[in-house]
Amino acid sequence: MTEESSSTGAYVGKGKEFTRDTRYIDTRITADGRDGYPVEPGRYRLIVARACPWANRAIIVRRLLGLEDVLSMGVCGPTHDQRSWTFDLDPGGVDPVLKIPRLQEAFLARFPDYPRGITVPAIVDIPTGQVVTNDYPQITLDLSTEWKQYHREGAPDLYPTELRAEIDEVAELVFRDVNNGVYRCGFAGKQEAYEAAYDRLFARLDWLTERLATQRFLVGDTITEADVRLFTTLVRFDPVYHGHFKCNRTKLTEMHVLWDYARDLFQTPGFGDTIDFAQIKEHYYVVHTDVNPTQIVPKGPCLANWLEPHGRELLGGRPFGDGTPPHPPKPSEVVPVEHWALG
Amino acid sequence: MTEESSSTGAYVGKGKEFTRDTRYIDTRITADGRDGYPVEPGRYRLIVARACPWANRAIIVRRLLGLEDVLSMGVCGPTHDQRSWTFDLDPGGVDPVLKIPRLQEAFLARFPDYPRGITVPAIVDIPTGQVVTNDYPQITLDLSTEWKQYHREGAPDLYPTELRAEIDEVAELVFRDVNNGVYRCGFAGKQEAYEAAYDRLFARLDWLTERLATQRFLVGDTITEADVRLFTTLVRFDPVYHGHFKCNRTKLTEMHVLWDYARDLFQTPGFGDTIDFAQIKEHYYVVHTDVNPTQIVPKGPCLANWLEPHGRELLGGRPFGDGTPPHPPKPSEVVPVEHWALG
Repeated sequence: MTEESSSTGAYVGKGKEFTRDTRYIDTRITADGRDGYPVEPGRYRLIVARACPWANRAIIVRRLLGLEDVLSMGVCGPTHDQRSWTFDLDPGGVDPVLKIPRLQEAFLARFPDYPRGITVPAIVDIPTGQVVTNDYPQITLDLSTEWKQYHREGAPDLYPTELRAEIDEVAELVFRDVNNGVYRCGFAGKQEAYEAAYDRLFARLDWLTERLATQRFLVGDTITEADVRLFTTLVRFDPVYHGHFKCNRTKLTEMHVLWDYARDLFQTPGFGDTIDFAQIKEHYYVVHTDVNPTQIVPKGPCLANWLEPHGRELLGGRPFGDGTPPHPPKPSEVVPVEHWALG
Repeated sequence: MTEESSSTGAYVGKGKEFTRDTRYIDTRITADGRDGYPVEPGRYRLIVARACPWANRAIIVRRLLGLEDVLSMGVCGPTHDQRSWTFDLDPGGVDPVLKIPRLQEAFLARFPDYPRGITVPAIVDIPTGQVVTNDYPQITLDLSTEWKQYHREGAPDLYPTELRAEIDEVAELVFRDVNNGVYRCGFAGKQEAYEAAYDRLFARLDWLTERLATQRFLVGDTITEADVRLFTTLVRFDPVYHGHFKCNRTKLTEMHVLWDYARDLFQTPGFGDTIDFAQIKEHYYVVHTDVNPTQIVPKGPCLANWLEPHGRELLGGRPFGDGTPPHPPKPSEVVPVEHWALG
């Protein structure tokens, strides 16, 4: 996803609250193909940007489930203009599979008058070059449930049937107050809207702190979709949201339970290895000229502490349940070590 | 002081470094009156804004030396437009002694074509309504040396003869890399200028950390002008410079020696009682629309920890030497408790 108003270039409406457009292309890729798009190895391409927290969910889930060889991935660069995400990282500025320079083309191939934001993650049908879906919350759930026959051996169940109600409930609160809450802080056009979002954000983080003080993961005793969704916001908290979005009651590093929890996940294969801190910082600080007109990207904070011991093993829990951690990323998908900018 | 370019409303020059105009009205008020302005009780008025770090020096020194009854103080509000500081906090928006709504009038009374920034601190000659000086580094030194006969009983010597060379040397480095360094970070118009200022700032803070790890105060074993000058930047670090000016390698609270040192001073009469966190935050976030176009003022950080024990007594040192701490502020000069915003 990108912020909905990106196609107009305005994030902050003076005197307004930030309201996220939550209408997406909700066609689904399913095992039975009932929407016309059956699960099929090699047919689809997941388009992401490593900068984007919503796309980051899909990158993590694809890694955890070992779907790399059946669902290829195209990666947009961290910055973009008003026409949204581009393949500027690829040789010639063109996605090597879709052969297009801008993700917008795949949206327009499906809907010539597509009126909403050009967002990642999006899944494109390679034969037609058309976007199938950019409905990010459904995308990760479908990777877990509809693509099951292609999961790697030892893949975790990120959305176990008996825990779905609880995962959905937690995820909804986390979305409203945290995932989207940070944007409501940063894109508030008036002081009262900002303060209301700030209060809800930190109240929810306190609630999460209490929950995670005694259990290693958010729901059950293994990693689930709920953890993936919280992680992608927490990992961006100090490098971006604390300063850029004014979420500054405390840094993540000052919220000890959440900081330990986030490091636990970061150090788990499939999480930290998807994170590109350099692209994350560049995206927010360069693209949101309404918030940061100078487009200067902060040098800090020091991020080396993400690799420090977290001690969460003492709480028990089995990250992958009866399964196993994923293999390291494919060489072509490794985040360059200098992008960690951990110094 | 305000930033020099404030009269034009532009702080950040795209593609430029920030260069502070350091030319001020350098007339001096002296014991011998050689510039035509002899030290004289009741004749002058010190104009400040509690938001401004440069003015804050003078507020502190006046308090420490007990000059409140001989040198009255007018206080400008935290925000202003392109015509600079106003007396909007006073009844009717007019300074009760000078009878003017804008500090600019006192500058123009002295120099009708005054071409530079309208800055605080400024000292005004009450009979003529003219600014005598806005040369902030000299103002505090002259309060210490030229106004000596009016110092309170037990006033500290903030600029002792035998330590002047060392104080000047430290103060020069602190000015270049820290006091002004944070502005060079925040007002940098290009990435390279920002990064150079950031590197110098944190290298100097590391240097200060080393120096202050084993001695309680910057120079000698008592409070001096050097401590006053460092303090006014440190106290603004987490509420403003860390986020607004992108000085974000670490928060002050994460630099333990400096954080303890700053709390030690904050809790010393004459320092913390001059600080208005609410006005400090409002000033920077509302006035610098080049940096923060939304003018939203962050709610954080939590500042209650300024009152926590600092433990620096263990290093020895005698804050006031052979002297004594100042009395509490005059009732009319007490910062309203709700402005501490320490929650």
